[in-house]
Amino acid sequence: MRVEAVDFFYLSMPEVTTAADGSQDALLVRVAAGGHVGWGECEAAPLPSIAAFVCPMSHGACRPVSASVLGAQLNDPGDIAAISARVAHDSMDLLQAAHTLSGIEMALWDLLGKARDEPVWKLLGYTRSEPKIPYASLLFGDTPAETLERARKARSEGFRAMKFGWGPIGTGTAAYDAEHFDAAREGGGEDSHLMVDVGQIFGEDVEAAAARLPALVAARATWLEEPFSGHAFEAYAALGARSPTVGIAGGEAAHNVAMARHLMDFGRVKFIQIDCGRIGGIGPAHEVAQLAAARGVSYVNHTFTTHLALSASLQPFAGRAEDRICEYPADPCVLALRVAANPILRDAAGEIRAPEAPGLGITVDTEALQPYLVDTEIRVGGKLLYATPPLG
Amino acid sequence: MRVEAVDFFYLSMPEVTTAADGSQDALLVRVAAGGHVGWGECEAAPLPSIAAFVCPMSHGACRPVSASVLGAQLNDPGDIAAISARVAHDSMDLLQAAHTLSGIEMALWDLLGKARDEPVWKLLGYTRSEPKIPYASLLFGDTPAETLERARKARSEGFRAMKFGWGPIGTGTAAYDAEHFDAAREGGGEDSHLMVDVGQIFGEDVEAAAARLPALVAARATWLEEPFSGHAFEAYAALGARSPTVGIAGGEAAHNVAMARHLMDFGRVKFIQIDCGRIGGIGPAHEVAQLAAARGVSYVNHTFTTHLALSASLQPFAGRAEDRICEYPADPCVLALRVAANPILRDAAGEIRAPEAPGLGITVDTEALQPYLVDTEIRVGGKLLYATPPLG
Repeated sequence: MRVEAVDFFYLSMPEVTTAADGSQDALLVRVAAGGHVGWGECEAAPLPSIAAFVCPMSHGACRPVSASVLGAQLNDPGDIAAISARVAHDSMDLLQAAHTLSGIEMALWDLLGKARDEPVWKLLGYTRSEPKIPYASLLFGDTPAETLERARKARSEGFRAMKFGWGPIGTGTAAYDAEHFDAAREGGGEDSHLMVDVGQIFGEDVEAAAARLPALVAARATWLEEPFSGHAFEAYAALGARSPTVGIAGGEAAHNVAMARHLMDFGRVKFIQIDCGRIGGIGPAHEVAQLAAARGVSYVNHTFTTHLALSASLQPFAGRAEDRICEYPADPCVLALRVAANPILRDAAGEIRAPEAPGLGITVDTEALQPYLVDTEIRVGGKLLYATPPLG
Repeated sequence: MRVEAVDFFYLSMPEVTTAADGSQDALLVRVAAGGHVGWGECEAAPLPSIAAFVCPMSHGACRPVSASVLGAQLNDPGDIAAISARVAHDSMDLLQAAHTLSGIEMALWDLLGKARDEPVWKLLGYTRSEPKIPYASLLFGDTPAETLERARKARSEGFRAMKFGWGPIGTGTAAYDAEHFDAAREGGGEDSHLMVDVGQIFGEDVEAAAARLPALVAARATWLEEPFSGHAFEAYAALGARSPTVGIAGGEAAHNVAMARHLMDFGRVKFIQIDCGRIGGIGPAHEVAQLAAARGVSYVNHTFTTHLALSASLQPFAGRAEDRICEYPADPCVLALRVAANPILRDAAGEIRAPEAPGLGITVDTEALQPYLVDTEIRVGGKLLYATPPLG
């Protein structure tokens, strides 16, 4: 097979707010080859990501992503790796390329799996899809009372694990943050897994982050996620050295394997969290899962959006029984809920698995997405480089 | 003052080839505030960089760059740093943001310098602009004979330092590469500074790069530049340990200060090369220059395009007499030559300095650029988000 077409679909809620809710828009990718179709999703700004696919070449090391993908051979996983290597070299000066490639790469795996009638995790070499404990991924409330309420709701919905993120944490006093952590613990229940995500709020300020550790210890948090900016490896290591019980977690900002490796080797994180929609897709994420296993670091997916992204993000560690916890979008925007006609539901034990169906095992509900499609058009030098294609 | 307007101009040669010649297109930025105008240049893919400025917000941590810039206060260097900090946080999930910001940030410095009637290097705290030895930045020929000819030409033009990059190096045998290195040394003259740039050709393959070291030693190369991909710190360190006389150089891919710092601390490079058009502008580059000085690492600009970019890239180390060598675009496309009405010329000693004139000291020749302006239009959801503004 050869890659015949790559189509991008920019979807958005009618109103987008400044909340740290990444499910307010979405960039879906549809790839066609050999009579098959595959779907993927970039966890990225839609317009710049589309632009990185269609833009004119600037020079030999700044080619559009399309130049490495369209017409490429696609018969086995090695062909996908070859496409990724070509993008890394020929688009090395195009910063957005990794985000653009991520959704395409997922779609290539989905397509290859469908063509071979096998789930992607089998193509990756795993023999079975292990059960994972999904944690409800939620945002902190504006007040501790609101956080308590959200935690209780997640608990009532059967979640035994939950993560609270962003909100006011880090913007006021450590004592106020402690109230939120306590509320999350109280609402989630004494026996729940509790994780905390502070969205890079401390920049590279180790002391400010360390001031929150006692309250996180008291709330028995499993991890503190993204205390610092994605490249602040030294700060991650310094904080980790001061935190014996609360593991330091990070990695969602990694846009290549090396960044994730460095966060483990130089940043000494205990949990490495990879977003397949940013790191370049499933192949690089699988490589990170193997590096993590060799280092005794827990691999966790980063997924706050759709069940298409969720399936993709489960594949790289689907067969690793040791990595038990996975992120599960618990309260996304309605647009994100409409993407998958067959979402990944929890079983009687409250656990989930990467689907057994071929490819990513997700049916994209193109009909349900029509109202969210954002009409987009890009013209350069009198040529129409992009116009939203028909969906479905 | 407040930032009133930010305009992007996409310029391109009529034909763009796959040569590693980054001067085939350009993205200029014009900023207006308080009756003044400043100019900057992104060393980046124009269309995705424009898209990162005008795109709709995806969520609170994925806002367009414009959200942090338009209307922002601009009265002193601290205001520029505040804008950059806002972009780092509010656009953390927008990968292209750093490249987009780079040209804007330069323009902000240019504008502030003009408003204060001071060159940017004075605003950075330097008391004088030190002379630098400009090295002619050239591409290897397709054959050793062609490389010899290019080196002789540069020598005849008075260059006592030259760098050859890309071309066939690393794609054939080490013996063939040696012929090119020898030709460059022969053409450049026994007393010239010779540098070699291999454009990430070896990925993370230390052995392949090490195989070229003996020939580089024989040709008395000052440095070997970018043997590996920008994030391959471990490979940089491993090669450096095996190369006592030829310094390992890199850093042009750094899109934030931390990446450059890591290349020094983990990659142990001897020369750190910063492109102000990628790292986020002049402020972050100046921070790297200070980090380099503290570490005994030589700071070098990375500039392959225009004299606007050259002036910007000289500012961060303009006052550092210890860092003697600077990159100088020796044979760019005509488009790049037309940008500056008053290019930075070599003095009688063959040296250059960052201009004494206010701001970046470069007059952009808008009239000469008209034929290269690429008409661009972006529409999202029925709204015109970008249309090429009038130039001049």
